[in-house]
Amino acid sequence: MNYPKTIRDLIEVYKKFPGVGEKSAERLALATLSFDEETNIKFSDTVRNIKTKIKRCTICNNLTEEELCDVCKDNSRNKKIICVVEDPKNVILFEKIGVYNGLYHVLGGLISPLDGINPENLKIKSLIERVKKDEIEEVILALKPSIEGETTVLYINKLLEKQKIKITKIAHGIPLGADMEYIDSLTLELALEKRTEV
Amino acid sequence: MNYPKTIRDLIEVYKKFPGVGEKSAERLALATLSFDEETNIKFSDTVRNIKTKIKRCTICNNLTEEELCDVCKDNSRNKKIICVVEDPKNVILFEKIGVYNGLYHVLGGLISPLDGINPENLKIKSLIERVKKDEIEEVILALKPSIEGETTVLYINKLLEKQKIKITKIAHGIPLGADMEYIDSLTLELALEKRTEV
Repeated sequence: MNYPKTIRDLIEVYKKFPGVGEKSAERLALATLSFDEETNIKFSDTVRNIKTKIKRCTICNNLTEEELCDVCKDNSRNKKIICVVEDPKNVILFEKIGVYNGLYHVLGGLISPLDGINPENLKIKSLIERVKKDEIEEVILALKPSIEGETTVLYINKLLEKQKIKITKIAHGIPLGADMEYIDSLTLELALEKRTEV
Repeated sequence: MNYPKTIRDLIEVYKKFPGVGEKSAERLALATLSFDEETNIKFSDTVRNIKTKIKRCTICNNLTEEELCDVCKDNSRNKKIICVVEDPKNVILFEKIGVYNGLYHVLGGLISPLDGINPENLKIKSLIERVKKDEIEEVILALKPSIEGETTVLYINKLLEKQKIKITKIAHGIPLGADMEYIDSLTLELALEKRTEV
């Protein structure tokens, strides 16, 4: 005795989600079963349509339903600054704080040869072309402070070196409101090294 | 700037799942986007079909795609014992241990007047009728050890009192392998009270 086939099928799908194991998948499948008719149809249709409706912005590789994403279409933005991020989720994070008014460039990952991700698998070439073509004045590298992130920062920096533009990366250190005792020692070391005058 | 509409729609659906907040819903929606074509179609179809394909067993209220569930259809099972559980998930849990050979009865919840769940909202009436009609010899109440669970146990016990059948409930106490210091005091008190001779 096990769940009926339709539920087992759905459990198998949910298990493909990151961080979802057998038990969580079961819970999600049973929750799906208890949705009302309207939610159920909307859910099914949205899943079905997502792959055809969602495209990548031809300029910055961000998610969009049109040719250009909302940021690239917006003429009020500063078109001379590009913030380079790993994935579309990061664009939303920056947009939420609402202080950045430039453009973005979504790499689609970080350089990680061990995982088979090389520079040519990422949107690095199109970034370099964009910087040259659009006379960009500053490139902000807003990538994760990991080995992959640092490798990507160094790689892009190397390619842009000759462009005589400002290349910056976001600051790393102790997050505001953090409990000092829970900060890892590498971050603490970095924070100490990069100390600023009060 | 926010996610394109199709993704926002999907995030709204995922937020309806129990225990899924904004961030998890975002992660699930972006994961859905990265599924291959085949998984995507299977996912969409299964969700669409689940409400029509999955029915409730007319005898025990368990999930099934036919009139009767796999347990009720199985003639090798002991038809004189009924294990009463809260929801279909519990049936699977008992089936996994593989030592119980009787039938089930899925209540569909526990009595909880504060949440508006009264006995008539649960499959209690059909349980009593079943016990009488099928000459059941034992009813095992396998419900959660909570106020709602205990209330339901007492309520069903009251209704079955006159039937001269064995009514039991599963044992509560310290789970095997548990670290004694992490056990709550109520469970410890109960375990002490229900101590057995070695």
